[in-house]
Amino acid sequence: MNSSAGSGGEMEVDSNKQEIFQRTKNAVLVNGVILNGPITDSKAGEKFVEDACKIIMEEVIQKAADVTEKVCEWQPPEKLKKLLDLEMRDTGEPHQRLLQLCQDIIRYSVKTNHPRFFNQLYAGIDYYSLVARFITEALNPSVYTYEVSPVFLLVEEAVLKRMIEFIGWKEGDGIFNPGGSVSNMYAMNLARYKYCPDIKERGLSGLPRLVLFTSEECHYSMNKAASFLGIGTQNVYFITTDERGKMIPEELEKQVQRARKEGAAPFLVCATAGTTVLGAFDPLDKIADICERHGLWLHVDASWGGSALMSRKHRKLLHGIHRADSVAWNPHKMLMAGIQCCALLVKDNSDLLKKCYSAKASYLFQQDKFYDVSYDTGDKSIQCSRRPDAFKFWMTWKALGTTGLEERVNRALALARYLVDEIKKREGFQLLLEPEYANICFWYIPSSLRKMEEGPEFWEKLHQVAPVIKERMMKKGSMMIGYQPHRGKVNFFRQVVISPQVSREDMDFLLDEIDLLGRDL
Amino acid sequence: MNSSAGSGGEMEVDSNKQEIFQRTKNAVLVNGVILNGPITDSKAGEKFVEDACKIIMEEVIQKAADVTEKVCEWQPPEKLKKLLDLEMRDTGEPHQRLLQLCQDIIRYSVKTNHPRFFNQLYAGIDYYSLVARFITEALNPSVYTYEVSPVFLLVEEAVLKRMIEFIGWKEGDGIFNPGGSVSNMYAMNLARYKYCPDIKERGLSGLPRLVLFTSEECHYSMNKAASFLGIGTQNVYFITTDERGKMIPEELEKQVQRARKEGAAPFLVCATAGTTVLGAFDPLDKIADICERHGLWLHVDASWGGSALMSRKHRKLLHGIHRADSVAWNPHKMLMAGIQCCALLVKDNSDLLKKCYSAKASYLFQQDKFYDVSYDTGDKSIQCSRRPDAFKFWMTWKALGTTGLEERVNRALALARYLVDEIKKREGFQLLLEPEYANICFWYIPSSLRKMEEGPEFWEKLHQVAPVIKERMMKKGSMMIGYQPHRGKVNFFRQVVISPQVSREDMDFLLDEIDLLGRDL
Repeated sequence: MNSSAGSGGEMEVDSNKQEIFQRTKNAVLVNGVILNGPITDSKAGEKFVEDACKIIMEEVIQKAADVTEKVCEWQPPEKLKKLLDLEMRDTGEPHQRLLQLCQDIIRYSVKTNHPRFFNQLYAGIDYYSLVARFITEALNPSVYTYEVSPVFLLVEEAVLKRMIEFIGWKEGDGIFNPGGSVSNMYAMNLARYKYCPDIKERGLSGLPRLVLFTSEECHYSMNKAASFLGIGTQNVYFITTDERGKMIPEELEKQVQRARKEGAAPFLVCATAGTTVLGAFDPLDKIADICERHGLWLHVDASWGGSALMSRKHRKLLHGIHRADSVAWNPHKMLMAGIQCCALLVKDNSDLLKKCYSAKASYLFQQDKFYDVSYDTGDKSIQCSRRPDAFKFWMTWKALGTTGLEERVNRALALARYLVDEIKKREGFQLLLEPEYANICFWYIPSSLRKMEEGPEFWEKLHQVAPVIKERMMKKGSMMIGYQPHRGKVNFFRQVVISPQVSREDMDFLLDEIDLLGRDL
Repeated sequence: MNSSAGSGGEMEVDSNKQEIFQRTKNAVLVNGVILNGPITDSKAGEKFVEDACKIIMEEVIQKAADVTEKVCEWQPPEKLKKLLDLEMRDTGEPHQRLLQLCQDIIRYSVKTNHPRFFNQLYAGIDYYSLVARFITEALNPSVYTYEVSPVFLLVEEAVLKRMIEFIGWKEGDGIFNPGGSVSNMYAMNLARYKYCPDIKERGLSGLPRLVLFTSEECHYSMNKAASFLGIGTQNVYFITTDERGKMIPEELEKQVQRARKEGAAPFLVCATAGTTVLGAFDPLDKIADICERHGLWLHVDASWGGSALMSRKHRKLLHGIHRADSVAWNPHKMLMAGIQCCALLVKDNSDLLKKCYSAKASYLFQQDKFYDVSYDTGDKSIQCSRRPDAFKFWMTWKALGTTGLEERVNRALALARYLVDEIKKREGFQLLLEPEYANICFWYIPSSLRKMEEGPEFWEKLHQVAPVIKERMMKKGSMMIGYQPHRGKVNFFRQVVISPQVSREDMDFLLDEIDLLGRDL
C-alpha cells in the first residue's frame, strides 16, 4: 500500500479511505485510520531530497567561493514577506513548488559562506564540517546515551581530550553546548556549585550575595547568565580595562576586596580571551594569581580567541590559560566547524560536571544496562536531546590535521596584519587601536570630514557615516561588515578575518569599497 | 594560486612556501604566510561534498525505509574505539580515506530513522525537514538579527504565529530553543521575572524562598532548571498523581497552601501534557483554576504532547491549554521536524520575553540600523548564535499541510491503540496502564514466570527480564525499544509510536520479537 498523494508524499486518508480499504488485504482500521503498511512514499521522498541537494549544491556550495555573487539580496521585512510564500495552509504543496520555495529561501538568505561576508565572528565554507553536518542531519541522533549515540559520544570524548591537551591540562572533562553563551552559563553554575554544593538543592534564597568579576569588554552573555542563574546583573562586577580592552589586574584585586568588605561572597572571575568587539586578551597569568590568592574559580571565555591555541606562533596570546578552572572555546568561529560547535572544558576530573548537573532520570540513564554506563554522558548537560556538535570539528580536524588548523589561524592573523598596515597607509582610514587578534576596528572618514577638528561636531558626524555605508553595501550586496559604537567611541567598522577563501585581494576590495560607498558623505 | 595539497584540500604553506612565492606575481608575505588568492581548493571541496552526499543518500536515506536493515550494529565502547579511527593527527587525511570514515561513522551509528527504532520520543525520516536541515547547514546562518538572517527570522515569526493559534491564544510571543529542557528553563525564568522583575538585576539572595509546583511524573528538566536558575531542587514541590500519572488538582491546592504557610513564595505551576514515561496529560483546566485563584504562572510542558493540538480528534487531551501563560512544544518529536525543533510560546504580548532576557549588546543590536529593528529578535534569547530550527518544521508543514500533520498524529495514536489491543490479547504481555497517548508501557512475562504468584520474588525476577531482552535485541540489531523502572514499578518496556513509516506489521513484529528474544528467560 505504498501509495501517495501527489502533494505532500503522504496520502489523504480521509478522502479515499474506503477505496483503499477495499483494495487492501487484511486491512486493519482503527479510529478511521488504516494501519497496514507505511503511508510515506519513500521513493518520492528520496527523489525530492536528491532534487533539493542539487539546488543546494549549485546555489549555495558552488557559489560560496565566487566573489562575483552577491553576499545578500537585500529586501526590507515587509517586502520580503510578500516575496516569500510563508503561509502554512491546510493542504500541502507539490514537490515542484517546494523546490521553488527552496530556491527562494536560498536566494534571499545572506550568504555567510561568501568570501566577503565579514559581519560576524564566523564566515566561510568548510567542506569537511559541512559533510559531517549533512551526516548528522540524515542520522538525526541525540547525544545522551551510548546506546542511542555510540559513535558520536566517542567522537565527543576524543575531541574534548585533544582540546584539553591544547589548553595545557593533564586531564579534564567537558561538554559541547548550543553556544558560547550557554558554555559561560555552565561555567558560572559550576563555579557556584564548587563554591557551595548545597545551592543545587537549596537555592540562593537566604544566602549571602554571590559576586563574580569580569571585564567591561566581556561578552554580553555574562549579564544574561547572571540574570538567568538568579545571581543578578548587579552582582557582576565589571573590571576596568586598559586602552587595548584588557582587564587591569590591579582593578580586579580592588574589586574583590570591595566585594569582601561589602559582605558579599566572591566566587568567580571570568576572563576573556578574545573580546567580541576589540579582540582583546585579558592577562590570564596575572588574573590567575589573584584567583589563587582569593580562592576564586577562574573561567576563561575563549569562545573567540581559543582557536589561537592551535597556532604555535599565536598561542602566547592565551599565556596562562592552563591555570583556568574552565574554558569556553567555540571551534565554529575561526576553525569554521559550523554553527554551533562550542565546548565547555573543565579542569576538574572528579566528576564535578556530573555531580553539578545530574538529575538521574531513570528512563534514560538506567544503571542495569549491559554496557559501561559511564559512556552515558548526557546527564552532564542541562539539555535532554543534544546535537553531536563535536563531530563537525572532528571531521575538519581529520581532514586538515593539526597543521592545517594551525595554518588557518596563522593565515587569518597574517591577513589581519596586512589589513592593519593598509589602513595605516590609506588616507581617510583610521585605526581605533592596534589589534591583537583578527578584529580590526577602524573608522572611515569621508573627505568632507578630513579637515574638520576632532571636536563634538566631528564625532557626531562621523557617528553617522558607518550606518549609511552599511546600508549602501547591503543594498548593493557587495560585502557585509559590522559596525557599532563602543564605550564612548562613535560608530566604527569591525572587520573580522577568518576564512581561507579570503585573500589579500579581498582586504584591498574591502577598503576600496568602503571608500567608494562613502566618499560623498 | 588556487593550489592544494593532496591531503586536506589546503596547501602546506610551510614546506613549499618559497617555491610558490617565486611563482606568484605580486605575492604578499606577512609573518611567513602568503596572502594572495584563496588557499582552499574549492573544486576538490565540492567534489568531496558530492561524493559524501552520495554515501549519505545510499547508506542513510535510502535504507531508512528498509526494515530488513539493522537498526544498529552494536559494538561495546572499547571495541568500537578500535574499529573507528578517531585519533586526530598532525597531518590531514586524503579524501578517499575521509569517505571511508564517513561510511564507518554511518555504519556504527544507530539508525534512528529505521521503522523499528522505538527507543525515544523521536523517530523516522521526514524528507521535507531533512531538506530544510541540509539548506540550513549549507547556508550556516545564525538567527539573531534581520540583517544576517532575514528569511529565517520571518519563517520563525510565521511558525510561532501558527503554533500560537493552535494553542488557542489570540496573540502571543515565542522563541525556538535548543531543547524542551531549555524551553522549560525559559518559562521558569519568565514566570520568576513576572513575579518580581527586580530579580533580573538583584538576584535571589535575601529574597523569600521561591517555590514551584509540578507533578511527580514531570520531566527531569524541572529539577535541572530549578537547580540551574538558583531556585534549588528542594523548592520544586512535587504533586501526587493519580493511577494514570495525572496531577491531582486537590493535591496541588494543598501544596500551594502549605508553601504559603511556610512563608515561601509560590510563583509557578508546571503542568505536563504528555509525560515522558507514561504519556499522561495533567488536567489543565482544573489546574488553571487553581493558578488563577492563587495568581500563579501556569506553564505547560507539552514538549511531547503538544503535537496532539494538530488533531481535531485528539486535541481534547490538552483541554484548557489556552489558559496557560506559557507552553513548551517540540515539533521534533511526533511531528518529526528533526532534532532539535523546540518552541517556547508565551501568551503575554507586552514584550515580556524581551524585557526579561535582553542585554542590549550594542555590537549586534544597534538601534540606528536602516530597517525596522523590531525584527532583530535575538535579544529574546539566552543564546547569542542560534540555529533556525523553526525552518525545518515550516518546510514539513508546507509539504504536508495542516491536514497531513493531523493525519500523522491520528495515525500514530491509532497504531498505539492497535498495539494496546494486541497486548491485551497476547499471553505473556501485560499493560501497565491504559494509555492516553502514544506511550505504551507493558511487561513481557516469560513463560517461567507466568504461573508464579505476583509476590516479591516475581517482581524481582520480572525486573531482570527487560534488560536481558534489550541486550539481545541490540546485539541482533532487529529493533530498539526502551525500558525503565518507574515509581515502584519494576522494569517495563515503553513503546513509542511516531513515524508514518511504521505500520501494523511493525507492531506485530515488536511483540513477536520480544517473545522470541525472551521466551527462554
